[in-house]
Amino acid sequence: METNMAGHFADRLLDACRRKGSVACVGIDPRLELLPRALCGRLSPATSYLRFARGVIEAVADLVVAVKPQIAFFEALGPDGMKAYAETIICAREAGLVVIGDAKRADIGSTSAAYAEAHLAPGGGFSADALTVNPYFGTDGVAPFIEEAAASGKGLFVLAKTSNPSSGEIQDLKMKGRPLYEVVCGLIDKWGSGSIGRSGYSSVGAVVGATHKEELGRVRRLLKRSILLVPGYGAQGGKAADLAGAFDAEALGAIVNSSRAVIYAYRDAPRRRNYKDAIRMAAAGMNEELDRVRRGR
Amino acid sequence: METNMAGHFADRLLDACRRKGSVACVGIDPRLELLPRALCGRLSPATSYLRFARGVIEAVADLVVAVKPQIAFFEALGPDGMKAYAETIICAREAGLVVIGDAKRADIGSTSAAYAEAHLAPGGGFSADALTVNPYFGTDGVAPFIEEAAASGKGLFVLAKTSNPSSGEIQDLKMKGRPLYEVVCGLIDKWGSGSIGRSGYSSVGAVVGATHKEELGRVRRLLKRSILLVPGYGAQGGKAADLAGAFDAEALGAIVNSSRAVIYAYRDAPRRRNYKDAIRMAAAGMNEELDRVRRGR
Repeated sequence: METNMAGHFADRLLDACRRKGSVACVGIDPRLELLPRALCGRLSPATSYLRFARGVIEAVADLVVAVKPQIAFFEALGPDGMKAYAETIICAREAGLVVIGDAKRADIGSTSAAYAEAHLAPGGGFSADALTVNPYFGTDGVAPFIEEAAASGKGLFVLAKTSNPSSGEIQDLKMKGRPLYEVVCGLIDKWGSGSIGRSGYSSVGAVVGATHKEELGRVRRLLKRSILLVPGYGAQGGKAADLAGAFDAEALGAIVNSSRAVIYAYRDAPRRRNYKDAIRMAAAGMNEELDRVRRGR
Repeated sequence: METNMAGHFADRLLDACRRKGSVACVGIDPRLELLPRALCGRLSPATSYLRFARGVIEAVADLVVAVKPQIAFFEALGPDGMKAYAETIICAREAGLVVIGDAKRADIGSTSAAYAEAHLAPGGGFSADALTVNPYFGTDGVAPFIEEAAASGKGLFVLAKTSNPSSGEIQDLKMKGRPLYEVVCGLIDKWGSGSIGRSGYSSVGAVVGATHKEELGRVRRLLKRSILLVPGYGAQGGKAADLAGAFDAEALGAIVNSSRAVIYAYRDAPRRRNYKDAIRMAAAGMNEELDRVRRGR
């Protein structure tokens, strides 16, 4: 069953940011070789993943605003993994977290409609609060996601400038002097124009990697009505100080994701008995770092 | 268990084309509202999908070279649908068909590695012979797929110019006079350069919609070492005559996909008792049409 169905996605997300005093999102990227040993043992990998995801959710639920389960790691386990992914989403929503399904889906329109049904529709098998989407197909490949998001109070985060080293090969290519990711931002702004909430933000956000300081600021100026999802903070090398340009005048308008640096924090704290304590501490530390950036210190 | 593990993907695909005298691929896109009534009834949607997929496979196995199950339609049914997708792949491979998993996956490198494990690795939960991949992340987002394909004799089809009406919004944008999809073709050629088989084709193919006649010819000339996967034939409006430019001198080098026009052919043949006969007839008709094109008539 769906929870959190009331209201507009961006409004709901920003309200949660204000209430919790956090713009942090924790990525749930389970990998068998990195899990606490106590969660493996005789369990199936999918069961270990779900137990770990539950532990992460329990550790951070009151501290951060959102979690972002990465479907690829669950998908690698086959159908059982997909069931663990579905249950992870339910568990996180029940814990009051905004859940961003990180699936980067997109296809031609009629096929995107099936993905939208899976990942956004009430009753969909993997229904989260928001979904990451790839823009390569253009408007008709994204439209079914926009429609489903509007119908069910959900959100999208469309890839603009991704955090990986090669992102520039395609995303920075210049057309009439503008890099492709800026053209994509123009599309994102248009795609969100029909779904502006009372916060002034639309249901169609943009993904910009924390690893790209300048681009973050440029996208923030181009996309005044889109919430930015900023991955790549922490293990991928994005630094807190580089994020200043991502926020609006109220120090909101962006949420920052860290995956490995938070959920595997216990690996650097070998004497700690409970892996959840290490995760909780890392999430609290992330909040503090982001607070300093948001306060301009 | 894996079958067909021997050899190089492109060589294997071209051998199958020669042996069967076909360059046709049938897309398996199950939709509950379009299935034969006899397959629904008291069955769960996922069971209906699997039965239908088995029927399609049985009807076309000796006629066409490949099938392309579209994961989005299975994903829309949640974990049970994903199980039906996995079983569809196994069933098609057992029937001697080359299976192209149509999932259009891509992410940053470490995440793409998980998708490659799921969709290409021997023993992966959804392991097909080849996978469709989105190029937006650039080289490091595609590299794990290339590596897994090389290690296990599998293939990729990277999106160049997609069949949908809006594809031009991003893919046709000009940079230094060249449309983006041509730049992507340059990357695809590079990505395939380490995996050229005895056929002269690499394991890294390209997707170009049948709805784009001129672009098909241009991509064929740019990508002499990549097999083209050409969707959009049939229901999406691509015509046989427009495909002439997709083939090489031996009338090979491309496979053409039709989904709805083949698998739902029985809906235009209401008096026919067996839906498989209608599918079989449509597949045979597709082979004949493509034969005429390939012979230049």
